[in-house]
Amino acid sequence: MEYRIIKSPSKGTLDILFRRKGSSSTTSIENYDAIGLVQGRLIDMVFAADIAEKAAGVVVEDIKGHCPQNLIMIAIFGDTASVEAAVNEIKDKVNAARKGEAL
Amino acid sequence: MEYRIIKSPSKGTLDILFRRKGSSSTTSIENYDAIGLVQGRLIDMVFAADIAEKAAGVVVEDIKGHCPQNLIMIAIFGDTASVEAAVNEIKDKVNAARKGEAL
Amino acid sequence: MEYRIIKSPSKGTLDILFRRKGSSSTTSIENYDAIGLVQGRLIDMVFAADIAEKAAGVVVEDIKGHCPQNLIMIAIFGDTASVEAAVNEIKDKVNAARKGEAL
Amino acid sequence: MEYRIIKSPSKGTLDILFRRKGSSSTTSIENYDAIGLVQGRLIDMVFAADIAEKAAGVVVEDIKGHCPQNLIMIAIFGDTASVEAAVNEIKDKVNAARKGEAL
Amino acid sequence: MEYRIIKSPSKGTLDILFRRKGSSSTTSIENYDAIGLVQGRLIDMVFAADIAEKAAGVVVEDIKGHCPQNLIMIAIFGDTASVEAAVNEIKDKVNAARKGEAL
Amino acid sequence: MEYRIIKSPSKGTLDILFRRKGSSSTTSIENYDAIGLVQGRLIDMVFAADIAEKAAGVVVEDIKGHCPQNLIMIAIFGDTASVEAAVNEIKDKVNAARKGEAL
Repeated sequence: MEYRIIKSPSKGTLDILFRRKGSSSTTSIENYDAIGLVQGRLIDMVFAADIAEKAAGVVVEDIKGHCPQNLIMIAIFGDTASVEAAVNEIKDKVNAARKGEAL
Repeated sequence: MEYRIIKSPSKGTLDILFRRKGSSSTTSIENYDAIGLVQGRLIDMVFAADIAEKAAGVVVEDIKGHCPQNLIMIAIFGDTASVEAAVNEIKDKVNAARKGEAL
Repeated sequence: MEYRIIKSPSKGTLDILFRRKGSSSTTSIENYDAIGLVQGRLIDMVFAADIAEKAAGVVVEDIKGHCPQNLIMIAIFGDTASVEAAVNEIKDKVNAARKGEAL
Repeated sequence: MEYRIIKSPSKGTLDILFRRKGSSSTTSIENYDAIGLVQGRLIDMVFAADIAEKAAGVVVEDIKGHCPQNLIMIAIFGDTASVEAAVNEIKDKVNAARKGEAL
Repeated sequence: MEYRIIKSPSKGTLDILFRRKGSSSTTSIENYDAIGLVQGRLIDMVFAADIAEKAAGVVVEDIKGHCPQNLIMIAIFGDTASVEAAVNEIKDKVNAARKGEAL
Repeated sequence: MEYRIIKSPSKGTLDILFRRKGSSSTTSIENYDAIGLVQGRLIDMVFAADIAEKAAGVVVEDIKGHCPQNLIMIAIFGDTASVEAAVNEIKDKVNAARKGEAL
C-alpha cells in the first residue's frame, strides 16, 4: 500500500479527485486543509475506508482508476491533524490485519 | 486469496460495497454486525460464493472492482460468528480444492 | 488453467454466473446437478468451449470477468457425471494442444 | 503467440466468436470446416491479420477479449487446409519479423 | 515514474491529449510552447498534479489511457522553461515523498 | 517498444485499424503504400506520435486496444520510404529520451 498526504490541495487536484469519486454525494470537498491518499488492492481499500470512516473529523471517498469500476484508491479529506491520524491508523490496522491479528 | 473481517461496518463502507455489488437485489445490507471480504480469482470466488451461500445466517454479494488482475471479491454479510464461520469454511475448502481433493 | 466442480450449486452462485454469461440465451440454468468451471486464457477457453459443446449432456456458457468483454471462464452445466467427463476431456485435449499434438 | 486449430467447430463455439468479433460484417461464419485461432499482442495481431488476409481461401476476424494483458486474438475461417496454411504462414512471418528480417 | 518533454508539440499530438483529458474544460491547449508528460501510479499522479498546479505558468490535465497497469498520466502545458521547472519539481518532491520525507 | 512495417496492407487490416483509431477523422486511410505500427506505453506513444507528426509524408493515428480509452499503439500511414523514415526516427528519439538526452 502507498500513502501520501497533500496539504492545502490545489483546486485542479480536487477536481481530479472529484471527477473520480465513487459516491454520488455532491458535498463540496473544497473546504479541507489536507487530503490523505491511500492506494492498494480492493480488499485493503474497503478495510481502510472503514477505519477512516470511524476516525474523527474526516470525510472518505473512494476514487476510481481508469478501468470501469476500478477501486484502487481512497481519499480522506479533513484538517491536517485528523487526516494524518486517520492515515496512521490505517497503516497500523492494515499491517495488523496482514499479520493475521484481525482475523 | 485474501480475507478480511470488518466488525460493525460504517455506513460509508457499506455504501462502497453496495455501489459495487453485482446483483440487482435491493435488500438492505445495513443491518448486519459484520462483513467478511474474500478476494481472489474469478474461479475461486464462484467456488467461495457457493460455500458461503450454503452456510447458515449469511448473505453473499459479489463486489465489482479489480480489473487488472482479473480478481473479484465477494462480501459476506451476517452476524460476526456466522461470517467468521463462513470465511473459515471457504479457507478450508478452497485450500482443499487447490490440493485436488475436490476434483 | 484452473478447474473446479461445484455440486448442487446454490441459487446465489447460479445468479452470479447467469449475470455474467455472454450468450443472450434465457434458458434456465437452475436445473442442473453440477457446474464445471474452467478458467484460462481466451484462446484456451474457445478451444475448451468447443470440446465441451461436443460432449454429451452438458450446456456451455462463457462467463465474463470485469473488464468489458473479458472472457476468462466457461461454465459447464449438467449432471455430475457428464460435467466431470467434459472437464476431464478439456484437461486432456488442452494439454495435448499445448504439447503441439493438435497442431 | 499462441495457436490453435479447431476442426468442425460446434455452433456454440461459433456463437462465442461471433459475439466477440470486431467487424460489423454480418456474413455468416458457420459454413467453414475449421477455425484457426491466433492470440498475441495487438501489434503482432495486426501484422498476422494482414498475412492471413492475403492468404487464399480464408476469412479473418479480430476477436475481442483479453483486456488485462493487452492481448487480442484473430480467428481465421476456412477449409482445414487453407486455415492450416494461413496459420503456418503467420508463424513464419511473425518469427521473421521478430528477428528483424521484416524491418 | 516516467518523464518526457515535448517542445513545439504538433497539432495531432495535442489532439490525442485533448481527446483523453479528464476535465471537461474546453480551454484551448494549443497555444503552449511545450508539454511535460509524467506517467505513474494513480497516487503519485494526484500528488504530482498538485505540485504542478502550484507551479507558475502551467496548466495541468490528467490524461486517460493505461488501464492494465493502473497507471495514469498527467500533461503539463506552458512555455518551455515553466514546464521544465514543474517537471523537475515533481521529480524532487515525488522522490522525497517516497523516501518518507513528506509523510 | 515494438515496431512493424506492413507493406501494401490488405483491406481487412485497414478495417481493423480504422475501427480502433482514436480520432474522429473520416479521412480515408486506404490509399497508402505502407503502415508503420509502434506499440508501447502511453507516454512513449504520445512522444512517438509527435515525432511522426513532424515527419514528412505520413499520417498518424492512435489505435485503441481493448480496454476503453487504452492507447497502446500508433499507426503511421504513407509511402514505404516515408513510413520507414518515420519509424526509424521514432526509434532513435525514444531511445535518446530514455537515456535522458531529451530531458
